[in-house]
Amino acid sequence: MNKKIITTTAIAGILLLLLAVLPASAAIQATSVEIRGTVYNDAPGEIITSWDANNFAGFWYDLKGNLKSESLTITPGLIGVTDRTIDDPTGLNYTAIRQLKGYKVNSSGGKTVTDGLDNTGAVVAAGTHYAVVGWQAEKYIALKGDAKKLVKQVLEQGSTDKKTLTIGETWDIGDGWTLMAQSIDAKASPRQAWLVLSKDGVKLEDEVVQNGNVFVYKKDIGGKSDVPLFVTYIDSVFAGATSDMVQLKYTWAVSTSVLEIKNGQTYGVMEVTDAQASHITLKNKDTAVTLDQDSTVDIMGNLKFKVADSSTLRFYPMVEYVIGEGVAEVPPVDEKPPVDDKPPVDEKPPVDEKPPVDDKPPVDDKPPVDDKPPAEEVPPAEEETPTPGFEALFAIGGLLAVAYFVLRKK
Amino acid sequence: MNKKIITTTAIAGILLLLLAVLPASAAIQATSVEIRGTVYNDAPGEIITSWDANNFAGFWYDLKGNLKSESLTITPGLIGVTDRTIDDPTGLNYTAIRQLKGYKVNSSGGKTVTDGLDNTGAVVAAGTHYAVVGWQAEKYIALKGDAKKLVKQVLEQGSTDKKTLTIGETWDIGDGWTLMAQSIDAKASPRQAWLVLSKDGVKLEDEVVQNGNVFVYKKDIGGKSDVPLFVTYIDSVFAGATSDMVQLKYTWAVSTSVLEIKNGQTYGVMEVTDAQASHITLKNKDTAVTLDQDSTVDIMGNLKFKVADSSTLRFYPMVEYVIGEGVAEVPPVDEKPPVDDKPPVDEKPPVDEKPPVDDKPPVDDKPPVDDKPPAEEVPPAEEETPTPGFEALFAIGGLLAVAYFVLRKK
Repeated sequence: MNKKIITTTAIAGILLLLLAVLPASAAIQATSVEIRGTVYNDAPGEIITSWDANNFAGFWYDLKGNLKSESLTITPGLIGVTDRTIDDPTGLNYTAIRQLKGYKVNSSGGKTVTDGLDNTGAVVAAGTHYAVVGWQAEKYIALKGDAKKLVKQVLEQGSTDKKTLTIGETWDIGDGWTLMAQSIDAKASPRQAWLVLSKDGVKLEDEVVQNGNVFVYKKDIGGKSDVPLFVTYIDSVFAGATSDMVQLKYTWAVSTSVLEIKNGQTYGVMEVTDAQASHITLKNKDTAVTLDQDSTVDIMGNLKFKVADSSTLRFYPMVEYVIGEGVAEVPPVDEKPPVDDKPPVDEKPPVDEKPPVDDKPPVDDKPPVDDKPPAEEVPPAEEETPTPGFEALFAIGGLLAVAYFVLRKK
Repeated sequence: MNKKIITTTAIAGILLLLLAVLPASAAIQATSVEIRGTVYNDAPGEIITSWDANNFAGFWYDLKGNLKSESLTITPGLIGVTDRTIDDPTGLNYTAIRQLKGYKVNSSGGKTVTDGLDNTGAVVAAGTHYAVVGWQAEKYIALKGDAKKLVKQVLEQGSTDKKTLTIGETWDIGDGWTLMAQSIDAKASPRQAWLVLSKDGVKLEDEVVQNGNVFVYKKDIGGKSDVPLFVTYIDSVFAGATSDMVQLKYTWAVSTSVLEIKNGQTYGVMEVTDAQASHITLKNKDTAVTLDQDSTVDIMGNLKFKVADSSTLRFYPMVEYVIGEGVAEVPPVDEKPPVDDKPPVDEKPPVDEKPPVDDKPPVDDKPPVDDKPPAEEVPPAEEETPTPGFEALFAIGGLLAVAYFVLRKK
């Protein structure tokens, strides 16, 4: 009888909990934001047939350097009062040019990145710049300055951002990149930090970096050798009485999933007609684009024309960000795969790298307990854990109720 | 002993469940989308000091009617190479003008809305239009065409959208509005539907509407009498062998939370200097606005200037949409309350309305079982329930595990 009561109350609690959890989850709503360009309106002075980052905020723009990459142009005179069709093969033109942007570790930190670019786009030993390409209204990094080999940026710390890692702590940087602070050597001068960089759970490199120095991880990827994929800077190494830590700045990381762009590939209604290291050009080579009244016309990727429900030809280019539960900060690329080409190459990290011998650490990893902490307050470690949602609170509440019922019968 | 095992396994299950629920909730990420206007750049030909919906996509724009409402202007010549300050009292100007838009029930359905507007903005018995104002980069409806009395739009069904309600079903329209299909009268000609409109759980009106007719709910609100707040159209009344239903089109609903705008109110750095039924003007009357290098400068609400980290004066106006867990489709208004005025009046529905006498329904609410269904397929009722998130699945899985342990010991 007693057991039956326990079972009954437990099941009642479970059912209550289910009721509590489900509506809370169901309340999470997706939503969308549309970014439109300047309107083409078939009226004097309102015929707009060319868009760049200045009149279409969907295209990538860098305010600090006043950098623009993309432009979309309809050949003038093709469309008008009686003609809603952008004829192939050259009516619609899209060009993405490469732009050079300074690494923050250089522009703010005064250090360089080995095998980065100079301010003309050439690969140099003491690199100061990397290359950015706006591609289908999203920001990409061009590997070694080649606009035909694109990866997404995973992280760029702002010029005043700092990441604090206590010893043993792992930083989940995104896209599978993790950085662990293994230990510090406070007796060396300057002090040193032992960092362990991993990708997708596989250790790539143990690196001992002096305070004030840069750690660059390079790899052969996308047919390019020694591509800088991860950059960070040791801003401080702190040896405390009970715990040690390092602080990192100017961290910069890119994805290892490479989008390779080649002549003849098609994206939506567009075909790549000129793929160069410095720029990519696409045209609607085989597809006429008709701007039907009250329609949304796919161009490529997230890039679309939205046409008015009006007998007057009126439309704008736009991108839509659909954002909801568990979506990362980059909008999803809703793109048809290139017709005549391989899918983007996802370069796996080498799995045959030997782990470092653990009983011979390169530095003394015991905390130097006799070191005095610096007089200044140590900033608290940055909080990385988001607050659990309401559904978790409901779940915990329900579980405590079940536990209460169960224990009361004991 | 047996009980102890039950308790132990139950608690172990609970702990496992907690572990399962917490990370799943923590994985839900917020994200943001910035919409920028055309850049002011201190270079020849790039001095932009005026923005409207055409060069700043944050401002409301209606593509069908080519309607714009807002403009933001910096008095020309005020800022430049050596001057980053937009002086008060008239350096920064914001104007929102009222625009008239056709009710879909009129433009697509050919019906009118009592006490709506005509195409000049006058209130008429057979209304065809309503008034829209872009206010702080969001769309608002102007009550009876008065730009000083603004409410958010809750719903506007597209011209081809249909909502199917089976008898007894309640439609959650948003912002507390619900519409329930009480019953149909299939013997009347034309057929009739009995609809029950409620707001915040309080029944406002029982309305019997003929097929092909419009139901308009009006109320005194914000100092205006007989304001149309809810409009819907009966597109079809269907009497089936086992269940009846109605289909609704052109449904249009607004919030009852009224934002009243008056001369002298301040919003951010701006003050209302001219509040008219047809337009609202604000100026930075008491606050000079300085465009400091590498800063984001609040104007009002979500409206901001973003200034380049550059010695050249370069900036753009922008709004940011921060979207994440459980956020509705309208971005939150992050606005300081007007300094010298009352907060927006949230008009509560009258609670003293008597419920209709239930034993005397205005129509015969038994399903007419002898009616033949129409030959055409009835469209399925629209799916309104979102899929539960992963955290709910984890929770259910954990609970089933607990239930299994508990029951196994029985």
